[in-house]
Amino acid sequence: MAGTNSERPLLAEGPVIILVNPQLGENIGMVARAMANFGLAELRLVEPRDGWPSDSARSAASKADHVIDGVQVFDRLEDAVADLNFVYATTARSRDGFKPVRGPTVAADTLRARHRAGERSGILFGRERWGLKNEEVALADEIVTFPVNPAFASLNIAQAVLLMSYEWMKSGMEDESATPFQAVEQTPATKENLFGMFGHLEEALDARGYFRPADKKPKMIDNLRAVFTRRAMSAQEIHVVRGVISALDRYTRKNPRGQDGGDER
Amino acid sequence: MAGTNSERPLLAEGPVIILVNPQLGENIGMVARAMANFGLAELRLVEPRDGWPSDSARSAASKADHVIDGVQVFDRLEDAVADLNFVYATTARSRDGFKPVRGPTVAADTLRARHRAGERSGILFGRERWGLKNEEVALADEIVTFPVNPAFASLNIAQAVLLMSYEWMKSGMEDESATPFQAVEQTPATKENLFGMFGHLEEALDARGYFRPADKKPKMIDNLRAVFTRRAMSAQEIHVVRGVISALDRYTRKNPRGQDGGDER
Repeated sequence: MAGTNSERPLLAEGPVIILVNPQLGENIGMVARAMANFGLAELRLVEPRDGWPSDSARSAASKADHVIDGVQVFDRLEDAVADLNFVYATTARSRDGFKPVRGPTVAADTLRARHRAGERSGILFGRERWGLKNEEVALADEIVTFPVNPAFASLNIAQAVLLMSYEWMKSGMEDESATPFQAVEQTPATKENLFGMFGHLEEALDARGYFRPADKKPKMIDNLRAVFTRRAMSAQEIHVVRGVISALDRYTRKNPRGQDGGDER
Repeated sequence: MAGTNSERPLLAEGPVIILVNPQLGENIGMVARAMANFGLAELRLVEPRDGWPSDSARSAASKADHVIDGVQVFDRLEDAVADLNFVYATTARSRDGFKPVRGPTVAADTLRARHRAGERSGILFGRERWGLKNEEVALADEIVTFPVNPAFASLNIAQAVLLMSYEWMKSGMEDESATPFQAVEQTPATKENLFGMFGHLEEALDARGYFRPADKKPKMIDNLRAVFTRRAMSAQEIHVVRGVISALDRYTRKNPRGQDGGDER
């Protein structure tokens, strides 16, 4: 399932991802892939340690070639953000200073609102081992940080980019609970259909002496019906259950369906 | 910042992560790290291709040793889920059938509610290249799928586990917009403080003949004050700006502060 599919719309808009001093090409590639997964396309690198282009980046990008091909490289962070109207800095640790600190959902909503207003935004991600310097954070408008396990707080840059890209994608959805595909549509069966199944089952059981002692029969029927009414069964489900009842009712182990002598009613 | 920090609470509860037929130890390790980042700890493997234990898994886990040490290995998926009350299957593609399909936020809320009710839950993740088989999905109660770029939909298992772990963490937060640290607290300055700054600046500018032509002075002052009132300045910010005004006002390029002959008022 990797790679692009030309029959499906390729999402490629939204905030610019800016990696400051990234070290491993592989991480840059995984960042590109994460961006592509969630519809971002514009990647900028400030002083990548091992230079650019990078074979290991392209390989790790798993065919997110449109992101890799579009990478821009800058010597200075100031130049990498020069055309942007609004910039977030990601950081895992508290900084002295007065910059507002946001969680990822609030940050994504802000980026989406600014995008819709025609502004260009970016998100800064720091070096693999120690993040952004204070003077780099100072160039951003606001800080975004992730809710993490306090005792195990380190996210690698590809993971951090993945989470922001994912929140960006969600921020564009009218309904966050929407899914790209759904269960097969089922409407609840009519009651007549349901009661028909109850009758079928109860008759088959009654014929086998299931309801004993006799004075317990009403309670046993209540319990049985409760199993099948706890959630609304669809007509399809009732069809399946009636097939089961029929199979149990009509055939025996010794005379199964399709065998000579099997009782086909 | 990698690794655990014994002074901070180590979160380690919540759904079991179950990898079916994982191939690369490195992926298992990245899964363990993602789980640790967001407070999950219980990892189960069904038929890991390269066996267990795995040095490459431990290495890629970046010190999520508590997850790696607790890994349980099973021959059959049925056994891996036997003690669980509720199971999600992750899948990127539509399946025939009637299982409810959820997005990650709804799924995480469901998992959290069941966790609070004392139920044990799990989430199934499939093989690196082609996910879960239909008969494996059939063992789950519901399906969870991610909102992705339709033209670039493949998530690797570590990314998928990261997203579900992250949503699990968020589902436990009282306020999703809360952040682990905040900006330094600032209260708006008093108006007296603000007007003092206006006076300071305007006097310094007036002394330099800034307000010309004279009839434009009121409008120019309005514009100047608008710059500083658009958002409520804190006392700290006013202190900073007054320092700037003083520096510009008292010293010149030829006679800067601290030089012989510098005008110290």
